[in-house]
Amino acid sequence: MNVESCAKRLLTHENILIVTHKNPDGDTCGSAAALCCALRRGGRRAWLFPNPQIGRKLLPYCEKYFAPADFKPKYIVSVDIADAKLFCHGFEGKVDLCIDHHPSNTHFAEASFVVGEKASCAEIVLELIECMNADITPEEATLLYIGLSTDTGCFQYNNTDAAAFTAAAELVRCGADIMTVNTVFFRKVTAARIKLESMIYDSIRFFRDGKIAVALVTLKMLREAGAGEDDLDDLAGLAGRCESSLLNITVREKEDGSCRVSVRSVPGVDSSAICAVFGGGGHAMAAGCTVFGTPEHVCELMVGVAEEVWR
Amino acid sequence: MNVESCAKRLLTHENILIVTHKNPDGDTCGSAAALCCALRRGGRRAWLFPNPQIGRKLLPYCEKYFAPADFKPKYIVSVDIADAKLFCHGFEGKVDLCIDHHPSNTHFAEASFVVGEKASCAEIVLELIECMNADITPEEATLLYIGLSTDTGCFQYNNTDAAAFTAAAELVRCGADIMTVNTVFFRKVTAARIKLESMIYDSIRFFRDGKIAVALVTLKMLREAGAGEDDLDDLAGLAGRCESSLLNITVREKEDGSCRVSVRSVPGVDSSAICAVFGGGGHAMAAGCTVFGTPEHVCELMVGVAEEVWR
Repeated sequence: MNVESCAKRLLTHENILIVTHKNPDGDTCGSAAALCCALRRGGRRAWLFPNPQIGRKLLPYCEKYFAPADFKPKYIVSVDIADAKLFCHGFEGKVDLCIDHHPSNTHFAEASFVVGEKASCAEIVLELIECMNADITPEEATLLYIGLSTDTGCFQYNNTDAAAFTAAAELVRCGADIMTVNTVFFRKVTAARIKLESMIYDSIRFFRDGKIAVALVTLKMLREAGAGEDDLDDLAGLAGRCESSLLNITVREKEDGSCRVSVRSVPGVDSSAICAVFGGGGHAMAAGCTVFGTPEHVCELMVGVAEEVWR
Repeated sequence: MNVESCAKRLLTHENILIVTHKNPDGDTCGSAAALCCALRRGGRRAWLFPNPQIGRKLLPYCEKYFAPADFKPKYIVSVDIADAKLFCHGFEGKVDLCIDHHPSNTHFAEASFVVGEKASCAEIVLELIECMNADITPEEATLLYIGLSTDTGCFQYNNTDAAAFTAAAELVRCGADIMTVNTVFFRKVTAARIKLESMIYDSIRFFRDGKIAVALVTLKMLREAGAGEDDLDDLAGLAGRCESSLLNITVREKEDGSCRVSVRSVPGVDSSAICAVFGGGGHAMAAGCTVFGTPEHVCELMVGVAEEVWR
């Protein structure tokens, strides 16, 4: 399926429900809401599945498109969903069209429009909307910019390519409110998060001349900071800010007496080999494992193994 | 002067010295080094003025182009310099060509190529190089990406426009190593900076239901963190990360018993009016002043005045 046939197919259907994935991020929400908005401009009745997991930053952008309880969809479209396992509700076997950018897409839907080389699903929806409606509204541009900018880490992740920047230029030309998106998604955090970061930065210990950095996140810290689930994004990235560090380990204490350990490393240092020792896994540069013990003890264990595995 | 005439003029000269501004940033250094590199490809003898103020992150990108002590320039080009006051060495009255993007440029040079609507000088140099040499090398693209990304705060400042994103796309296509630039300029910091941020975040106090946030940076903190000049970039931005805060005040203790105060605010809250009370000044959303007293006392004074001025 190409962008023209996908656009054409969408416009022949009515009562469309657009579905986002579980643990919804900016790309699935922004792409879905922009598509919904554009389909309505194209004369279609379209709604978003009211995904109960959408967080407080994304909710204001999505909830006005949430389907009412009595909506009976005739055509179901999934956005940014690579696998049927990623539904947070019973949509398995019911999706008519899947729009996605993950090369790993399992083609679970009746029809699929997958462009695997795109950094974000928002870039695919941008092309789709331009094909359906010839133009993009400022609201749609803002929604797509949320998807593009969050999926590329504000153009800092290594999926950021020339096409991502070209799409950003187009969205700005179409009136995307990038300053608000930047403020909400990349700049502002709660006072609890600030307090938590202060404590995590203070906890960082260095080993092997600073090449290993370990950050601890204890239950006491979370309690003292008053941190909620929304405040815990990318904690594993904090220790990695240290210049000297090539291997970053974040040990997060859990209620059951175990610690969840996230390991991040530069190329040449194998995070997954270190986590495999504790029954965990992942990729060479990002892996994880669960280890029982106090955070201090788990820190010692992890550093010991890291010193063994990484010579 | 347009881009063609500027390119033509540059290529008719020999023994070119390219000058960066005082307190050199990524845009002046990246643009100057890229221009130097491109002029050499165009068969010119060109060097950079060995600006002694270039910091440790930018130095590796510039120093190989530093003019030897016996170099006798015949044509002097300034890059990203709006005013003759911004030279860190005696170049007043000696500049043959000024290439700049500041609308406030004072036209101090013999000839000027100023494009005031560009977010970065790097975008102007990009057009210039494409005009001179028809292509851009990966090294030049990387240098220009340093200029573009640092002057736009990695595409988060409000000067970020469609042209900035279009230039970024072009630089990526030309082989810019954006991952290294992102790591060096936006991600990695020293362990001392991490420690200092931990202490500053811990120091933040809130007033008026969280709408005013005050951060303290004391001499003791700087000493305990082991922070050097390079670790003090944009400290005034840290308090501004708090979601609730509309007015952010950063009080930095100085050796002479005074405090340097930076005030940042959202539209509608006048930072400069608050600083004016203490003999300072600036813009509505970013202002500063110097106040004698301990950081705690200055914090109290500032909050008192802020409550008066901002009703």
